[in-house]
Amino acid sequence: MEPDLSRLDEYLADRGLDGYLVNAASTDSTQRYVSGFDAPDPFVTLYTPERTSLLVSSLEYGRAKKESRADGVTRLVDYGYRELAAEHGSAEATARAVAAFLDDEGVDSVAAPERFPLGPADILRERGVTVEPETEDVVTEIRATKTDEEVAHVRDAQDANEEAMRAAENLLADAEVRDGTLVYEGEPLTAERVKEEIEVTLLRNGCALDETIVACGADAADPHNRGSGPLRADEPVIIDIFPRSKETKYHADMTRTFLKGDASETVREWFELTDAARKAALDAVEPGATGADVHGAVCDVYEEAGHPTLRSDPTTETGFIHSTGHGVGLDVHERPRVSLDGGELKPGHVITIEPGLYDPEVGGVRIEDIVVVTEDGYENLTSYPVELVV
Amino acid sequence: MEPDLSRLDEYLADRGLDGYLVNAASTDSTQRYVSGFDAPDPFVTLYTPERTSLLVSSLEYGRAKKESRADGVTRLVDYGYRELAAEHGSAEATARAVAAFLDDEGVDSVAAPERFPLGPADILRERGVTVEPETEDVVTEIRATKTDEEVAHVRDAQDANEEAMRAAENLLADAEVRDGTLVYEGEPLTAERVKEEIEVTLLRNGCALDETIVACGADAADPHNRGSGPLRADEPVIIDIFPRSKETKYHADMTRTFLKGDASETVREWFELTDAARKAALDAVEPGATGADVHGAVCDVYEEAGHPTLRSDPTTETGFIHSTGHGVGLDVHERPRVSLDGGELKPGHVITIEPGLYDPEVGGVRIEDIVVVTEDGYENLTSYPVELVV
Repeated sequence: MEPDLSRLDEYLADRGLDGYLVNAASTDSTQRYVSGFDAPDPFVTLYTPERTSLLVSSLEYGRAKKESRADGVTRLVDYGYRELAAEHGSAEATARAVAAFLDDEGVDSVAAPERFPLGPADILRERGVTVEPETEDVVTEIRATKTDEEVAHVRDAQDANEEAMRAAENLLADAEVRDGTLVYEGEPLTAERVKEEIEVTLLRNGCALDETIVACGADAADPHNRGSGPLRADEPVIIDIFPRSKETKYHADMTRTFLKGDASETVREWFELTDAARKAALDAVEPGATGADVHGAVCDVYEEAGHPTLRSDPTTETGFIHSTGHGVGLDVHERPRVSLDGGELKPGHVITIEPGLYDPEVGGVRIEDIVVVTEDGYENLTSYPVELVV
Repeated sequence: MEPDLSRLDEYLADRGLDGYLVNAASTDSTQRYVSGFDAPDPFVTLYTPERTSLLVSSLEYGRAKKESRADGVTRLVDYGYRELAAEHGSAEATARAVAAFLDDEGVDSVAAPERFPLGPADILRERGVTVEPETEDVVTEIRATKTDEEVAHVRDAQDANEEAMRAAENLLADAEVRDGTLVYEGEPLTAERVKEEIEVTLLRNGCALDETIVACGADAADPHNRGSGPLRADEPVIIDIFPRSKETKYHADMTRTFLKGDASETVREWFELTDAARKAALDAVEPGATGADVHGAVCDVYEEAGHPTLRSDPTTETGFIHSTGHGVGLDVHERPRVSLDGGELKPGHVITIEPGLYDPEVGGVRIEDIVVVTEDGYENLTSYPVELVV
């Protein structure tokens, strides 16, 4: 995939900097995006408007030449790493090799991600290189707009996600109820058991293990609680799954709320209201609308029904107590924001829409779809049904 | 777990620094170790010889107070984060809150990990705080020596690892051979299928998914190739599994080499020689011996049998072409080194012993155990048998 980094070119030109320097493993999504290379240990990528160059260990050299999107790949040993390490230790040797590499590339000033490592930066600065941590999240902003290929990666991860959600829903559906607790194959059905089923299903569908939320009762009333212990009948169970494709590293994200047994009037109302909020948010998604507009559509629905939101009461601990959504890509939470301060939505933005209501007295209800903003609206990448009672 | 950070106290005293500052998510093992806290987004830990203090988002506040090993926990909002963010943006606001937090703790000079983020460091320095990236890996060195509790965590991960290895070996044993290829349940048995079995088994035993090596033929001759495609009969298959416990985050690490069918004379010799090298290395493990001594014992065995090693020929691409082992803990590769430049082994060091031979013409053979250095030698945490033919 060839990302469009023209906005980075502008950023560098505005500041009179020669290039953009990343020193990280590809667990850092900006490193993965700019280098197009997957490696478990830190390596160095220099982007300039003219070319992208990688500096890697000898171990990764062959693979970097084949797999990365760099125009050139060099090795630390090409810049005398071995001799430098014998004299100065490996940290100093690496930084000096980077300095020589920059010199070779004709670069003496770089922007760097805000979390560029301090030790190497200090050594580069001592050797006369300008290293300016960037404050505008320029690459993060670029990453928000997905190419068709990136959208396809999210779609594939979402397909696996729907398989996993189906497996989880089936467990709940197949459970019996004894003394108000769900029982499956003779054992109490726990959040942990459902998560295991989800994670194994993801694995069998090419997705890596990430944390999963299976939360019931008071656990579900805290949107950050992952959930644990036996699941109970007649209470809503929030299942929030956010897998990452092992091959492409792109994420998906979806939440459904299920209930085994009889739903109270309140839970039924909450569920219908939350589905209405989801639809109102989706109706608001189009290029030119802002994330704040979409978030506002959800708040309108909830507030009109008499529920507090963080918009109506920034200190509320019940009601709609988070933002409406977030971007999804190489990171499960990335730009754009779909919240009070969310900016303009653009074609290619992949975002979640996830309204919810929470109260420890009732539990929690959340419904989350993942959509891509298109030229004339949006496409919903989620096809999983929205139904409360299993 | 209460780590013994007295060597960090000495380091700070030697340099006249007030404390040690970490700004990272707990995916960073030093952050996890010093803070005793597990959080997916970056937070700040200040260690001083007197106390450990955390600065976290409001989201993590309750959990940090309950779960971390800190003597005190404060929130960004306690230092005016919200107002600062409205005026300066979130990066600058966070860094200013950290500066106020340090001031509150009476700290104006800190050591920091070499990979401390540059942006926040620059802002702290502008505000008069000394931030010195540390060059001696002092916390990494401290982490090398495990408490009994940490050794128990590695042992538990190794138990799961042996279950997974058993599942993989069973797949190979149960496969049939057709036209030189392994076939299982009517399908060619691929490296991918064996990895899936390993990963699902790890998941069912409480371990998170990490990459796994299942490599056959020429793939196995490259120690860094993860392996892919159909597995072939009469060729050694290297299986290297390094799981991480989902609960404790500690790793295990083990390699076995299996062969389905008939082993050539060469592969048989390699296997026996590698097992002899493993035993020679184990015999050399004791407190006071160095990692270099243990590595030397392996090189002796191989070189005496006429195989090149990186000790006898630093440029060789066949023979024994990696080091003998590495420390294992929160990171799967950590201190101490068991290599040409490996230092003194101490009780509590957890290390791998993993000799191997490689040649694209033959394939690869590797056998890896994980052991803990004890007061009078070592204890092998591995109980999996060492047998080539399945």
